[in-house]
Amino acid sequence: MKKVFALALILAMTAGGVYAQKKGGRVPSSAATKTEKSTTVTSIKNKDAFRLPPPMIGLEVPLKEALNNRMTIRKFRGEELPEDLVSSLLWCAYGINRPDDGRRVVPSALNVQEFDIYVFNQKGVYLYNARENSLELVVEGDFRHEISKQPFFHEAPMSVVIVANYDRMNVFKDEAVRDFYAAVDCGYVSQDIYLFCAATKLATVACGGINHEAIHKVLGIANGRALLAHPVGFAE
Amino acid sequence: MKKVFALALILAMTAGGVYAQKKGGRVPSSAATKTEKSTTVTSIKNKDAFRLPPPMIGLEVPLKEALNNRMTIRKFRGEELPEDLVSSLLWCAYGINRPDDGRRVVPSALNVQEFDIYVFNQKGVYLYNARENSLELVVEGDFRHEISKQPFFHEAPMSVVIVANYDRMNVFKDEAVRDFYAAVDCGYVSQDIYLFCAATKLATVACGGINHEAIHKVLGIANGRALLAHPVGFAE
Repeated sequence: MKKVFALALILAMTAGGVYAQKKGGRVPSSAATKTEKSTTVTSIKNKDAFRLPPPMIGLEVPLKEALNNRMTIRKFRGEELPEDLVSSLLWCAYGINRPDDGRRVVPSALNVQEFDIYVFNQKGVYLYNARENSLELVVEGDFRHEISKQPFFHEAPMSVVIVANYDRMNVFKDEAVRDFYAAVDCGYVSQDIYLFCAATKLATVACGGINHEAIHKVLGIANGRALLAHPVGFAE
Repeated sequence: MKKVFALALILAMTAGGVYAQKKGGRVPSSAATKTEKSTTVTSIKNKDAFRLPPPMIGLEVPLKEALNNRMTIRKFRGEELPEDLVSSLLWCAYGINRPDDGRRVVPSALNVQEFDIYVFNQKGVYLYNARENSLELVVEGDFRHEISKQPFFHEAPMSVVIVANYDRMNVFKDEAVRDFYAAVDCGYVSQDIYLFCAATKLATVACGGINHEAIHKVLGIANGRALLAHPVGFAE
């Protein structure tokens, strides 16, 4: 009963408005800088980063076709994805579409841009740097098995892991309100992954049943949470 | 502290897997029938429904253009939207892309398809029936002012209100797990609304700061929750 009450309270508090509180106008460029800065903090030094090719491929598909083909596919071929596909996939998921102020293809509550987007593949774990269009090595080695015991995480050549960085969500004083908006925002990213996969005939599935503790350990996350993981690959 | 603990518990429980538990293969057609049935139950009789034109307009825009133009706009012209735009907007938000089993352009946890999508405009409040591509009158009259005191709800000619119907989420025994997935799923719908608006140069903003009680009263919701509202209109 206590939990039910806590939830009722939590949900009632969202009525205070979050998306709605933000008035028109752009954030000062310092906000974008701050985001990039905190990304850098959690990443390793640049010499271990590599630049992706420009996000060009698979993006000319009409919106209607992407939506019509949007579906969940859980069977993957192990074949690695070419880098140009990975580049477009990550741009759709969390790319910057307004470089002047660092705003993105997906909204976030109060524009906190709370996510770090990681790629797990056979070679290592990488942090996506949208501004640089690069992948920064977090740790070498195949950690795909740490995400979940679901077979598709081992079968797919890579997974995108969406992590909410709570350091960027301090504006939400109530944790439950923070978590509500992090979950909504995560849906934005996840839908874009689905649409890109639909557009390019890749397979993907959004998975919430993941081993949070193991993932957090691999990524060194102290104040955040892995919300969803998306194995991505060619369909079997 | 109790709330923090409850949340930790809640979040830990999501590790049990929700999206991940669903194995490949389609749901039996009875699931789709059930969804449509429950939609019918909450709607009024068909004589008060009107069919929308087919969703055709604005959907040929390349995915890249929609993502590049994705942004929040809070200034609206009051001019009513033509029905063909409303039809495409609603199809993007929550349309069926696999009529054989009723699956949609957006995923939902365990395919529960928990949402009812309402349109509030000057004339009334309507429930979107995706299978019929129709709007079913819920109540006549202008209830836009009930959504929120934010001025854009009065300025925009219509708002889409996304309501999670908890009757369809009984499979989630833990309310917090249910709410996590409802929020993620709501992000899917909301991103599609953003992308359609970006594709057609319409203005929209996702708003979580809404008057839940007032909305629930207008819609007669006993076991569910309005999660987000999207005013939509021509940009000022």
